[in-house]
Amino acid sequence: MYSFKNDYSEGAHPRILNALIESNMEQEEGYGEDRYSREAIELLKERLGSKDVEIHLLTGGTQTNLTSISAFLRPHEAVIAVNSGHIATHETGAIEATGHKVITVQAVAGKLTPSHLQDVLEAHTDEHMVKPKLVYISNSTEIGSIYVKSELEQLKDFCEEHDLILFLDGARLGSALCSDENDIELSDLPNLVDAFYIGGTKNGALLGEALVLVKNSLRADFRYHIKQKGGLLAKGRLLGIQFAELFRDNLFFELALHANKMAGILRDEISKEGFTFLTHSPSNQIFPILPNEIIAELQTKYSFHIWEKVDEGQSAIRLVTSWATKEEKVMGFIEDLKQVLIK
Amino acid sequence: MYSFKNDYSEGAHPRILNALIESNMEQEEGYGEDRYSREAIELLKERLGSKDVEIHLLTGGTQTNLTSISAFLRPHEAVIAVNSGHIATHETGAIEATGHKVITVQAVAGKLTPSHLQDVLEAHTDEHMVKPKLVYISNSTEIGSIYVKSELEQLKDFCEEHDLILFLDGARLGSALCSDENDIELSDLPNLVDAFYIGGTKNGALLGEALVLVKNSLRADFRYHIKQKGGLLAKGRLLGIQFAELFRDNLFFELALHANKMAGILRDEISKEGFTFLTHSPSNQIFPILPNEIIAELQTKYSFHIWEKVDEGQSAIRLVTSWATKEEKVMGFIEDLKQVLIK
Amino acid sequence: MYSFKNDYSEGAHPRILNALIESNMEQEEGYGEDRYSREAIELLKERLGSKDVEIHLLTGGTQTNLTSISAFLRPHEAVIAVNSGHIATHETGAIEATGHKVITVQAVAGKLTPSHLQDVLEAHTDEHMVKPKLVYISNSTEIGSIYVKSELEQLKDFCEEHDLILFLDGARLGSALCSDENDIELSDLPNLVDAFYIGGTKNGALLGEALVLVKNSLRADFRYHIKQKGGLLAKGRLLGIQFAELFRDNLFFELALHANKMAGILRDEISKEGFTFLTHSPSNQIFPILPNEIIAELQTKYSFHIWEKVDEGQSAIRLVTSWATKEEKVMGFIEDLKQVLIK
Amino acid sequence: MYSFKNDYSEGAHPRILNALIESNMEQEEGYGEDRYSREAIELLKERLGSKDVEIHLLTGGTQTNLTSISAFLRPHEAVIAVNSGHIATHETGAIEATGHKVITVQAVAGKLTPSHLQDVLEAHTDEHMVKPKLVYISNSTEIGSIYVKSELEQLKDFCEEHDLILFLDGARLGSALCSDENDIELSDLPNLVDAFYIGGTKNGALLGEALVLVKNSLRADFRYHIKQKGGLLAKGRLLGIQFAELFRDNLFFELALHANKMAGILRDEISKEGFTFLTHSPSNQIFPILPNEIIAELQTKYSFHIWEKVDEGQSAIRLVTSWATKEEKVMGFIEDLKQVLIK
Repeated sequence: MYSFKNDYSEGAHPRILNALIESNMEQEEGYGEDRYSREAIELLKERLGSKDVEIHLLTGGTQTNLTSISAFLRPHEAVIAVNSGHIATHETGAIEATGHKVITVQAVAGKLTPSHLQDVLEAHTDEHMVKPKLVYISNSTEIGSIYVKSELEQLKDFCEEHDLILFLDGARLGSALCSDENDIELSDLPNLVDAFYIGGTKNGALLGEALVLVKNSLRADFRYHIKQKGGLLAKGRLLGIQFAELFRDNLFFELALHANKMAGILRDEISKEGFTFLTHSPSNQIFPILPNEIIAELQTKYSFHIWEKVDEGQSAIRLVTSWATKEEKVMGFIEDLKQVLIK
Repeated sequence: MYSFKNDYSEGAHPRILNALIESNMEQEEGYGEDRYSREAIELLKERLGSKDVEIHLLTGGTQTNLTSISAFLRPHEAVIAVNSGHIATHETGAIEATGHKVITVQAVAGKLTPSHLQDVLEAHTDEHMVKPKLVYISNSTEIGSIYVKSELEQLKDFCEEHDLILFLDGARLGSALCSDENDIELSDLPNLVDAFYIGGTKNGALLGEALVLVKNSLRADFRYHIKQKGGLLAKGRLLGIQFAELFRDNLFFELALHANKMAGILRDEISKEGFTFLTHSPSNQIFPILPNEIIAELQTKYSFHIWEKVDEGQSAIRLVTSWATKEEKVMGFIEDLKQVLIK
Repeated sequence: MYSFKNDYSEGAHPRILNALIESNMEQEEGYGEDRYSREAIELLKERLGSKDVEIHLLTGGTQTNLTSISAFLRPHEAVIAVNSGHIATHETGAIEATGHKVITVQAVAGKLTPSHLQDVLEAHTDEHMVKPKLVYISNSTEIGSIYVKSELEQLKDFCEEHDLILFLDGARLGSALCSDENDIELSDLPNLVDAFYIGGTKNGALLGEALVLVKNSLRADFRYHIKQKGGLLAKGRLLGIQFAELFRDNLFFELALHANKMAGILRDEISKEGFTFLTHSPSNQIFPILPNEIIAELQTKYSFHIWEKVDEGQSAIRLVTSWATKEEKVMGFIEDLKQVLIK
Repeated sequence: MYSFKNDYSEGAHPRILNALIESNMEQEEGYGEDRYSREAIELLKERLGSKDVEIHLLTGGTQTNLTSISAFLRPHEAVIAVNSGHIATHETGAIEATGHKVITVQAVAGKLTPSHLQDVLEAHTDEHMVKPKLVYISNSTEIGSIYVKSELEQLKDFCEEHDLILFLDGARLGSALCSDENDIELSDLPNLVDAFYIGGTKNGALLGEALVLVKNSLRADFRYHIKQKGGLLAKGRLLGIQFAELFRDNLFFELALHANKMAGILRDEISKEGFTFLTHSPSNQIFPILPNEIIAELQTKYSFHIWEKVDEGQSAIRLVTSWATKEEKVMGFIEDLKQVLIK
């Protein structure tokens, strides 16, 4: 059984494990004040082409979302997200648990547009309603689509004009930035959003997300919030060592490129067999629509999510690739699919 | 510079790193449903001598405290803790951030007694006040003292009689259970408290606490709470692999014994030099009282916390040892102390 | 200028003011333990035909909603409501501020159906999502429609089968129960829902809602929650005196009947002029669709909400009547409408 | 049985009831946007000698405390209060329920001093601890003492220097300002604190507190917070009418003066009989220490709180007077005390 279920099925890239081993017996300060965390942050600032950001290393996506959003907002302020947004669907109400409403709008290809924001602002006019304040987007999105630069620019312009905070969940940012269709550099992001994070968990790390606070007013006392929400690891070095290794050279991007390449092979080959896809997803998640019998056959050798029923006879499945996905397994999947089709 | 500042200055015990490497490319289920987490939980249940507990692996102490306490309590219910309790002082109001008051009482040797509880119950009589419901204790405590069995039994009896939940923060449980003065077995704990955790972070793991839910009514839907509070790691294997390694044999206890042994040497030798201690602490934290000049000298070669001023000329310092503390460094510290005294 | 803007434009029914005056200099216990509150509760229990309920008098709708819902739910549990539900739109995120997600579904005539609930349950399957637990409905609804008995029975059956709490916001319960189309008695409600409230503010009181807790498990320590959320009035007599007066005889129902009668006249007469309505609303709120020029004319003499734009030339307005609405003003409005139409 | 139990045993001053009756059938805007609320706010601004404040009318003390404090603070910020502070003891954890820790210090005569604040700031040094931000004081205090001007000035200076918010709970502000020992004018308060409220409930109103926001940064979007926390009355006129009546002339102060005068008689006469008091309380609450047998005798004719046991034979009781306390009842109490003493 080989898994295309997600991008966190394996451990970490071997270089990361090596780095852990090599540094293991060094004594370091706790709580992210170790030299590896400092190094990782310096490396990230270089990559971002900006010293004027504040960076924190956190443990996971939900932790980063809830810590950031609750730190950024006052009690009456709310979040705007697409209905498929991770915080709206798969975080067990983590944002609401910190006191804030998540206003959802119907996504367009998994994405949010200024027009959505306009509608929400028009519908929230006085103190009987929450005050929309933070715009949450994911790149790549939960259905594998990506934002291009002009889309982010339009969102950013709208947010600036209306005093909204633009926050980007980058749990799969590596895959987005390494997509064939991407036109954004990592160093563009500080100009495009107010805060964002660079996901490690889904791109080769054991765990870890690097949160970048761009807007100055979002930075004050941020470490208090990390600690209060339980995200300040005693051995913060664990995060520092990993991000230092990922950004010491191009490892972070190489891993994402590999994931995308593997997804690309699957997409192309499945397409050649005449199948269509639920969404256009130029990243490491693809959603082919297959007949249910074929899905059942594939499930005998591969694990993956059945995403949704399309009609009586067909469903969309989700195939996810990662830095660890083996090309031979991808080719094997295609072979097996072809075999099933012949039958 | 050698550090006696805390028990999380180094990485992980080498066996843990090896286990991570060996399992690294295996594909596992996410979110703690991997086989290593299942194995760790089985090993822990064996050690606890009880199948009738529910065990979850979480990332750190504050995360475990806030997730548990907020899951256990209704909005009007409060926690009772000693004034030196970790949740009362060093978790940035994490418990209050989930909505619950922490009622503090003046600790006796860092510990809580039934008499404290009686006082709190008598002072909280109606709906104009919070309702005390959960009793929080740490073993070993924040000042290195430990609970003996009869003390826990008395607390447990009181809690049962008054329908209170007894929760034990075991961030340093290893050191407590391996203390010369301890008379509690790990397998006694399910009979002594309603919920507790076994700290990995401070006893050889990179991160991780194993939470044991004993009381049946505390278990319902617990994974929802872990997820909501940001503590459910995508690569939950990271926790499973570590706890499996710690409890596959006696590693967990061997590491704690070593830490205690190192603290014991420091305690005995410092004592021989005629110094006294702020507290009686038969675990891996000791608090010798030293003249300020001597402290200043020692600080040129060792890092540690100055815990509190005792009088104009003297302060108590905190020395913490761990699984990773080298005996030669301990002996070096004693030598250096003697040298300073001769001067 | 005469207002059809809402049902809380005037003060209180004169009998209520008289009752306040007559009792004014009596000394009473504070915090709802006065004899008027006790009397009101007894009168309500008689009307409900049940001694086996617990009743609390609270200050207003949002206060009652947030106090009840936060008391009833554990942190990971969520509310299901229609998208037009008051808690979903017009309470400034009060429910989320207590930590709970409000899951919204597209209302059918302002109402919720078992089919909605089925959909929500099917979409919330594991601990990555909130756990739907409380079903929030309003009667009459925010758009003036009402639930008939069979609809509540179906909801109740579904909720019992799936262990959901059925909670009814009765801010306008008087109007609902006095509707021509209603087939529910006040005394039916304890059998139809798990908790509900009887709105005083919008039916002749200065302020006040009587919350009825039917389900036993919802009652524990409820006064703690009222106090914690700021709803326990020192002079609780103010609520007791009003509800005692409203339910000493049929005053509560007489006031609601009057409001409905006034709305009925408006509805019939506007209908006769050939206009249609946005919704079918057999209660004290009606939503006629009128040409914008006519609306503009009417606004010179009457205040009311423009509810929504229907097309380029027409909008729906909301006309609300109350216990205090004067029939002569209603007739005047109709006259004025006719005059405008002649022009 | 006559009650000296509290200052909210009776209804409202007759002038307030008259004002309610006279305005009763006028149609007014809802939610505090009525002309009476506007009038009350204008009258208050005149009294405060300042147009540059923002005033909101809320329902009660706990409601005002929790709404204000949660609006003013970010999640990691905490409150400093004396251990006898109302929010620390008698509000069922209302502040913690909004997420904020209340740090308590041992009161000096019921009061907080700059020295307390200094200690708290020194003990809270980094992100592992909450950040003290808001200083909560009550005037008069929970034990009847009052702040004099120089004390508030010193607190204000300290708060300004350390960027702390100074918040004054004025549930019994009338009594404090009308005390023989008071040297503060109502119009001084905007210069002495950042926010405060003027209690109506305990000084002749049915309910209501007038919150004055002085510091500009505390004002933004405040009505959202009132609504979210359930404190925005639909019939806000109820609060406006009452405060307009209280401040139309000197009624507010006359009522407080009467209460103080009644307490003064009790204090003087009890003192003459040779009894001492638990605290020095020059306001409407006094705490004489009496032999238990005498207390038991008095309880047959009067209701009051037994505040605390002083020694085996004696206890302190609390006698509270109000605008409604009758001088004949006060004299009767003294007579009865004398009778008991003769026996």
